[in-house]
Amino acid sequence: MADDILTPEASDEREAGHYTLDGPFTRSVLEAVEAEDAERLAELLEPLHPADMADLLEQIEGWQRAALLHLYGGRLDGAVLSELDESLREEVIHLLPPDVLSEAVRELDSDDVVDLVEDLEGEQKTMILEALSASSRAAVEQALTYPEFSAGRLMQREIVRAPEHWRVGEAIDFLRTNPDSLPDQFYHVILVDPRMRAVGQVAIGKILSSRRGALLRDLTEEDFRTVPVDQDEGEVAYAFNQYHLISVPVVDEEKRVVGVITIDDAMVVMDEEHEEDILRLAGVGETRISDRVVDTTRRRLPWLAVNLATAILASLVIAQFEEVIAQVVALAVLMPIVASMGGNAGTQALTVAVRALATKDLTGSNVLRIVRREAAVGLINGVIFAVLMGAVGILWFGDIGIAYVISAAMVINMLMAGLAGILIPLLLDKAGVDPALASGTFVTTVTDVVGFFAFLGLAALWLL
Amino acid sequence: MADDILTPEASDEREAGHYTLDGPFTRSVLEAVEAEDAERLAELLEPLHPADMADLLEQIEGWQRAALLHLYGGRLDGAVLSELDESLREEVIHLLPPDVLSEAVRELDSDDVVDLVEDLEGEQKTMILEALSASSRAAVEQALTYPEFSAGRLMQREIVRAPEHWRVGEAIDFLRTNPDSLPDQFYHVILVDPRMRAVGQVAIGKILSSRRGALLRDLTEEDFRTVPVDQDEGEVAYAFNQYHLISVPVVDEEKRVVGVITIDDAMVVMDEEHEEDILRLAGVGETRISDRVVDTTRRRLPWLAVNLATAILASLVIAQFEEVIAQVVALAVLMPIVASMGGNAGTQALTVAVRALATKDLTGSNVLRIVRREAAVGLINGVIFAVLMGAVGILWFGDIGIAYVISAAMVINMLMAGLAGILIPLLLDKAGVDPALASGTFVTTVTDVVGFFAFLGLAALWLL
Repeated sequence: MADDILTPEASDEREAGHYTLDGPFTRSVLEAVEAEDAERLAELLEPLHPADMADLLEQIEGWQRAALLHLYGGRLDGAVLSELDESLREEVIHLLPPDVLSEAVRELDSDDVVDLVEDLEGEQKTMILEALSASSRAAVEQALTYPEFSAGRLMQREIVRAPEHWRVGEAIDFLRTNPDSLPDQFYHVILVDPRMRAVGQVAIGKILSSRRGALLRDLTEEDFRTVPVDQDEGEVAYAFNQYHLISVPVVDEEKRVVGVITIDDAMVVMDEEHEEDILRLAGVGETRISDRVVDTTRRRLPWLAVNLATAILASLVIAQFEEVIAQVVALAVLMPIVASMGGNAGTQALTVAVRALATKDLTGSNVLRIVRREAAVGLINGVIFAVLMGAVGILWFGDIGIAYVISAAMVINMLMAGLAGILIPLLLDKAGVDPALASGTFVTTVTDVVGFFAFLGLAALWLL
Repeated sequence: MADDILTPEASDEREAGHYTLDGPFTRSVLEAVEAEDAERLAELLEPLHPADMADLLEQIEGWQRAALLHLYGGRLDGAVLSELDESLREEVIHLLPPDVLSEAVRELDSDDVVDLVEDLEGEQKTMILEALSASSRAAVEQALTYPEFSAGRLMQREIVRAPEHWRVGEAIDFLRTNPDSLPDQFYHVILVDPRMRAVGQVAIGKILSSRRGALLRDLTEEDFRTVPVDQDEGEVAYAFNQYHLISVPVVDEEKRVVGVITIDDAMVVMDEEHEEDILRLAGVGETRISDRVVDTTRRRLPWLAVNLATAILASLVIAQFEEVIAQVVALAVLMPIVASMGGNAGTQALTVAVRALATKDLTGSNVLRIVRREAAVGLINGVIFAVLMGAVGILWFGDIGIAYVISAAMVINMLMAGLAGILIPLLLDKAGVDPALASGTFVTTVTDVVGFFAFLGLAALWLL
């Protein structure tokens, strides 16, 4: 019953060509685990895509994971390890028999191995590196010398390249004689000059559909881009999305090709960056749904502590006006409204700004216009809600003075919300701080402090 | 100077292989427009990628756009239209001379034309459809019969297919004799049975690197998936990301291939879905940085109005305790802290839940465990901050009673925040409402109401 409620459309989705884990399936798996029925378990798990298998491991509890891997570990596809959430990798690797682990790792592409070992330490890292062939190990160790989150970490080192003077026939013959050296998937043949510098690339569809005598040089894509090996992976993902790239050569300082990044890796990075943004905006550190209570608590605590500090700051503002409140208790009833409206308006403005900064839609070209616009929007919404709240004030408390106070405070705070919502992300960005991370706290601090101060301050001036 | 502040690293990024519009560049463009110097303008704009050209048009003001297109419209690349933000398309199309528009549209792939005309109406739509060749027009009109946001709208109709019994040599010969019928980019040859049903697909890299005599059937990818033509585009993007797909055949109800979706289109959809989530979580409707003041105001107003209603609701709770506040004004000072901490904790929990629902990491398999975890996290953080606030209460007001009240209220509200933060998104999802859209309002309403009620209610019980 609970499963009915919480996995709507599970059956639709399976029909639609991709498989979503649902309650009944997971229950069958766990029953097979409990019955120690290795055969039934294999029957259930064999058809799973490695990504779904990783999801399954993430969704069950630690002791269930251990029991499942005890029964099934020997058959685990190596690709599951690179699909698995980082927080669980160490645990799962620890649970696998060493020979299974070696076998699994040898099947992976170099970029996946890098992804796997970069978060491991000591014994586990050594064990995995030793499982690789000498050439793969050298490749992985080389990749690990590039900075974290750089193109160098993201790229695969298997490169399909051809001298710039080759013809289609030569390229096809070369590919046919060396099929084992090719990466699993490739989309371009990179043309290089004698010094191995990338000079262009040809889509392999173009090679397939051209005559053997055609020069590769004549088939190159018009819009040719390369990525420096130390570029941030977020910038790489942005470029893929902006320019509809499929695969891009990665070059070193001398413009020599050292690897290739493909769009599927860029898509994963984009997804991770989005997740980071959305969680940071909510003041949540890197969190996984699979985290345990203690990890989750620890990750959320810092921002709650910051919030407590800012809430106390706002209370200190209120404390300055205790006398006023003691005389007009209605102020205590209404004051949260002004702060709340400011907080909301500020959050709207800052979210649009954070997103626009991330997509490079907010630049030097339009920043002044956008700041003016946010101020105008804040002012207009402020006036609209000032009129509304003025009316509420009169109807509720029958006091025109209170209506004046709340209306004026509303206009002031909404204007401040708009300005803080755009200026704080801009300043944080300029200071090199991710605006998604800290804008929310700063903006709501401004709107709380300004909201309480304007409302209670005006009340002290006008009502006493 | 202002530009220096707001376009940090602009020069780095250009060096890094992709071009970011910055203040000085945009200023040069606008100067050329003002001087009506068409030659200089062309010199500046010619090297721009269509996506960057679209960004430029989005970042300048309406009258500047009109003047720029007046001078440069004749040379505009058709691809700019499909890169352009929907809100500006109509305006830009209106500014282009009809013959330029026809020329531009004829260069586009069928999926881009669909993307372009689906938001247009009347005269403009007719004009664009009439500019197409009869066959292209039929293709576009057919695509428009599929529901909005479906795979049918997203797919391109140019399909590269081969009979399942063909060999590599036959496929290459076929492709070489029909190069003009091929799409710009393609990554697989789809194998079809005599009834045109997809039975598998072969990566073209595999075709290139295999001998002419090899059977295509023996080269097919192990993990073969198709997408039903009416599947939601968000589900399609999810499948591409989860299973690292590059291109997927789209099939009708009889499993016949009707089109192909490629990963670059899926990446655009994923980006749009993320944007929608992030903006909806902040209570911002579909907004663009290029929107005018009046549109922005109108789009933000509804959620501010909802927030006003919930803020008034919270005030009504406070109003029940006016007498208590009149006697102990310290309560007015402290009460926003309880509400604010609950709101923050609730927002953390709901953001994690909304994200986990979007990535299908929260399913029937683990929902009970996650609900229990959120309750536990809420309780633990509640106790931690109860102790802290109890200490603050004693130090600040020297009153052990106030310390008890705020501590107890803090535990209650943080626990409620955790529960509301997970249960409200789940219930909204079950009800078919996007949890990103409405969770925030509901959760903060709960934490405000519970926070004020618990704090003031306990104060009424214990302090009077």
